[in-house]
Amino acid sequence: MKAAPRVLLMMGSDTDLPVMQEASDILRTFDVPYEMRISSAHRSPVRTMNLASEAAERGIKIIIAGAGMAAHLAGVVASKTILPVIGVPMPGGALNGVDALYATVQMPAGIPVATMAIGKAGAKNAGLFAVQILALSEPHLAESILRYRADMDKELEQKDAELQTR
Amino acid sequence: MKAAPRVLLMMGSDTDLPVMQEASDILRTFDVPYEMRISSAHRSPVRTMNLASEAAERGIKIIIAGAGMAAHLAGVVASKTILPVIGVPMPGGALNGVDALYATVQMPAGIPVATMAIGKAGAKNAGLFAVQILALSEPHLAESILRYRADMDKELEQKDAELQTR
Amino acid sequence: MKAAPRVLLMMGSDTDLPVMQEASDILRTFDVPYEMRISSAHRSPVRTMNLASEAAERGIKIIIAGAGMAAHLAGVVASKTILPVIGVPMPGGALNGVDALYATVQMPAGIPVATMAIGKAGAKNAGLFAVQILALSEPHLAESILRYRADMDKELEQKDAELQTR
Amino acid sequence: MKAAPRVLLMMGSDTDLPVMQEASDILRTFDVPYEMRISSAHRSPVRTMNLASEAAERGIKIIIAGAGMAAHLAGVVASKTILPVIGVPMPGGALNGVDALYATVQMPAGIPVATMAIGKAGAKNAGLFAVQILALSEPHLAESILRYRADMDKELEQKDAELQTR
Amino acid sequence: MKAAPRVLLMMGSDTDLPVMQEASDILRTFDVPYEMRISSAHRSPVRTMNLASEAAERGIKIIIAGAGMAAHLAGVVASKTILPVIGVPMPGGALNGVDALYATVQMPAGIPVATMAIGKAGAKNAGLFAVQILALSEPHLAESILRYRADMDKELEQKDAELQTR
Amino acid sequence: MKAAPRVLLMMGSDTDLPVMQEASDILRTFDVPYEMRISSAHRSPVRTMNLASEAAERGIKIIIAGAGMAAHLAGVVASKTILPVIGVPMPGGALNGVDALYATVQMPAGIPVATMAIGKAGAKNAGLFAVQILALSEPHLAESILRYRADMDKELEQKDAELQTR
Amino acid sequence: MKAAPRVLLMMGSDTDLPVMQEASDILRTFDVPYEMRISSAHRSPVRTMNLASEAAERGIKIIIAGAGMAAHLAGVVASKTILPVIGVPMPGGALNGVDALYATVQMPAGIPVATMAIGKAGAKNAGLFAVQILALSEPHLAESILRYRADMDKELEQKDAELQTR
Amino acid sequence: MKAAPRVLLMMGSDTDLPVMQEASDILRTFDVPYEMRISSAHRSPVRTMNLASEAAERGIKIIIAGAGMAAHLAGVVASKTILPVIGVPMPGGALNGVDALYATVQMPAGIPVATMAIGKAGAKNAGLFAVQILALSEPHLAESILRYRADMDKELEQKDAELQTR
Repeated sequence: MKAAPRVLLMMGSDTDLPVMQEASDILRTFDVPYEMRISSAHRSPVRTMNLASEAAERGIKIIIAGAGMAAHLAGVVASKTILPVIGVPMPGGALNGVDALYATVQMPAGIPVATMAIGKAGAKNAGLFAVQILALSEPHLAESILRYRADMDKELEQKDAELQTR
Repeated sequence: MKAAPRVLLMMGSDTDLPVMQEASDILRTFDVPYEMRISSAHRSPVRTMNLASEAAERGIKIIIAGAGMAAHLAGVVASKTILPVIGVPMPGGALNGVDALYATVQMPAGIPVATMAIGKAGAKNAGLFAVQILALSEPHLAESILRYRADMDKELEQKDAELQTR
Repeated sequence: MKAAPRVLLMMGSDTDLPVMQEASDILRTFDVPYEMRISSAHRSPVRTMNLASEAAERGIKIIIAGAGMAAHLAGVVASKTILPVIGVPMPGGALNGVDALYATVQMPAGIPVATMAIGKAGAKNAGLFAVQILALSEPHLAESILRYRADMDKELEQKDAELQTR
Repeated sequence: MKAAPRVLLMMGSDTDLPVMQEASDILRTFDVPYEMRISSAHRSPVRTMNLASEAAERGIKIIIAGAGMAAHLAGVVASKTILPVIGVPMPGGALNGVDALYATVQMPAGIPVATMAIGKAGAKNAGLFAVQILALSEPHLAESILRYRADMDKELEQKDAELQTR
Repeated sequence: MKAAPRVLLMMGSDTDLPVMQEASDILRTFDVPYEMRISSAHRSPVRTMNLASEAAERGIKIIIAGAGMAAHLAGVVASKTILPVIGVPMPGGALNGVDALYATVQMPAGIPVATMAIGKAGAKNAGLFAVQILALSEPHLAESILRYRADMDKELEQKDAELQTR
Repeated sequence: MKAAPRVLLMMGSDTDLPVMQEASDILRTFDVPYEMRISSAHRSPVRTMNLASEAAERGIKIIIAGAGMAAHLAGVVASKTILPVIGVPMPGGALNGVDALYATVQMPAGIPVATMAIGKAGAKNAGLFAVQILALSEPHLAESILRYRADMDKELEQKDAELQTR
Repeated sequence: MKAAPRVLLMMGSDTDLPVMQEASDILRTFDVPYEMRISSAHRSPVRTMNLASEAAERGIKIIIAGAGMAAHLAGVVASKTILPVIGVPMPGGALNGVDALYATVQMPAGIPVATMAIGKAGAKNAGLFAVQILALSEPHLAESILRYRADMDKELEQKDAELQTR
Repeated sequence: MKAAPRVLLMMGSDTDLPVMQEASDILRTFDVPYEMRISSAHRSPVRTMNLASEAAERGIKIIIAGAGMAAHLAGVVASKTILPVIGVPMPGGALNGVDALYATVQMPAGIPVATMAIGKAGAKNAGLFAVQILALSEPHLAESILRYRADMDKELEQKDAELQTR
């Protein structure tokens, strides 16, 4: 992780790590340098705000924020930066992430948060969406995504073929 | 409103005013000086934070925060003060306040927000709850609440009596 | 628990104990004397009412009530006292606490219940909110809360630092 | 309404009257004497409890209780009587009666409330269910219900016939 | 179970038995003879209808019907008898009983089903509610219920006392 | 509509007519003879069962059943015929059709109901789905559907073209 | 599976196999030849479209499509064929299939998807519904379904009889 | 709209226009050329796929897709392009957009859709998010966004000031 990070991955608690690693795994797959930080909108508001407001000048292009329950992290971060902010609602708790989904996606007009699915699928897609944004100005990333998608298709095709031989 | 305010009423948008006035009406009923401010967690984060963090030293005792949709206002305020923060979820929007309820009440451990019902009933109760807190150290407020409750009971009794004569 | 209790912790069933102990742990952390009682709104209505109506004269300042399903405990208690009542919806049952949340938070105008998140996070925050109310008139509690919050921030900072070294 | 009431109709607020009249209309249709009372679980808890606990000795056989939002009325009444209690969740409010439904039907084991549909259909059925209970020991009511059902069937048959001629 | 059954317990599948036994346990506790039958609204509609329509003449006073998912059993039974029908929504399935609750409680006007909570608490309360109806004309059952309630209260009181000594 | 009906359209109440006419309009568009009947699963169970069980021998090929709230109509019909049954959940009531959707779609294994969207879109699609089934053995209907779809596409294309000229 | 397939079973992922096998088991029970394919609406859109658009000319009569989360498979398939398409929402994920149910059943007017219950019950019913459609033109299948239903009824009757002897 | 479009705005129906114009208004405010197209995932699948797959080579950088009910448009588009796709769930229908939200946001891993709030707030934020992505490589857009945010803040400040003078 020595290259200057281009994506900032934030999460509200270290318990979110197993989910958020789906995002960092994708970034590593595409060789996109990233930084992963634990900072809570509620328990460490000042550090959270600083991480958000200083991100652009540090060369960060995209921020991914994962949080659970009354998930304010992505919204608070988005209020302090004009970088694209991607939100990942965490599952768990009594409402299993519906609360986090609503608290992330229902942003009022003016400050958008690009929301992904609840949990690991969402975290993985957050990583992919960040790469798709970066690919707009980096053709080699576009090629990598096309290969990645072709591989997904091929993998499904193989599973389909195996199913026919059972 | 010349006396130093003891309750700070915040709302994320001026469209929340008709709901939040239920809270200020109650405070006026009990002669509790208050200040009413419009400040959004997302569109004016700095002013919001400042209002929260400076409240205690200005003599504010309780903060009531009303917001809708991904309602982060109460949580953001609560992260910047140790005064009791009461949250009022606004109705409206496609989910009609369920989003605001979840985003207000499902606070993670460490930073509590005392959440009231969605909409006007919640705003009124926010005002009453603030008075109940103040009444802990001001016996005359306790007496006022007891009278207020007796009046509610009497009003119901009267409506019940009218119903018997129909 | 020999000092006169200042917070009354009530729960509708002994099965709620593992959740409600999050609240009592917090009160112990802040050296706030409390009393913990099992009393159901439905199965022991008279004792419940008496506990509520006699609390103030016994020196109780705040009541925390936890209950599940059609959770009426906090509302019934709030109808018999003007002390601030904090409600904690229990998880569990087929609806896993959404029923308890709605039955606790959606109080009609006139009788407020300060509702916390469903389950352990909510119980912990109920304890913290009680301390925040008491801190309004006890500066040493305010200092303790500030320290507690600084510790939370520091703990997160440490976890964040550890994450950077992995 | 001079005959001794056999059904006690309670509601938490006079705004519930248009819904609850569906129940009283049914009772009048079947010539079952009833009493209709406004009494809130929260704003007039003592009167509510007394109405419930004194009902049996006044000759009341069944209690119908309608309430909205965190609808505790039926549950509170049921805790103070062993008469069958029928609950009617009121529509309205931001959650339009889902809160009232959960707060009425999800009673914990020990104190049952027989819950009907949200709103007017539920109120009407509450009246019919009360009559069905009374009909267990009054054969003339059983005959009336059979006639009532035959009429419903016939009315539908007629509407079906009209549809065929369009 | 040789005495003529007074309560008919129906369930849509033998997998509902562990839940519905909460109801039969209560009936045994109160010495109320019952009959327990498996019959599905969908898979055995004729037998279901016959069980419902012949119940009254066999001396049955109350029918308890438990079913899951699109739970039509209670409604179908209620359409074929004027005996009081109590519905118990089963938990389980992807929606864990919310579907069964809505399909049981939201009966259209004309044919009431007295709905209890989802699952075991609801089944137990269905049994208790049946006993409360029978107690209207059998004073010894009323006395038994009062004792049962006093025992519940005492049991809670004892648990509360134990808690004080910990 | 003198030709022998091939599709039987049933609804639980004449208030469902404005929704269900979307289905009959489609059948008329495709020249498929149908019969439209009002019959309730609860208020006219015998007629409903007879309509279902006699449909096949009358030459009916498909039954469309629309009902609201605890919508049992489609399920009850499906239990009495092996013809394909299409269910249309009605909007309206306090839950606006979520109850009807769950009560229609969540059929237990053994008796399927092909469920469409809540309301008019669902009723229209019920008609189209019936035509698609009939088209399996009637090539001219298949051609009509292809034309119908091409027209939908063309209509959208035209609206898109108009938008470009604004 | 050497006979030309008459039903095409599609699923978005091989993880859906344990659920979808409930459908293929039914088809085998009724001796209806089928083909089972893995193809995702999102990860292999071209193959999915081709499977759908070429199905009819290959002799396929009915397509069953199972998918989870934002379950677009059935809708995408239905847009490319006029064969009857049956959708099965998969359970799992943070919302446990409510998302898949809504994404499958709430099709806009014009392109119907016949939706079954979430999970295994729905997959089994999808198989049965396909057989019921085929039975419209194949009397021997109609007889098989009648026998199948009689067996279900008999099985329940036997379980009911066993219950009586316990 | 003569400049080559950089954002492609798609909607499934012309009835979505009043909502989606919130997005186009924002793009006009920031002088970002766009193209607005009506094309349905279900009723015009081929044109929809072509619009998606040909967008990149036409110079489109971002696609915004708005659709209602079982909203497949954004997902289908995302499966045919590696450009960033932003989804806007439409309100309306019996579920008022919860169905569209789930069908848009709960994308399975591999094909991300950046989801915004239901309705107008979401459409406006979709436009803003597109501008934020473009601003990554166009500094003048970044400045425009900063000014836009400062204006929002100032507007709120002014409303707050007006409130103080009432």
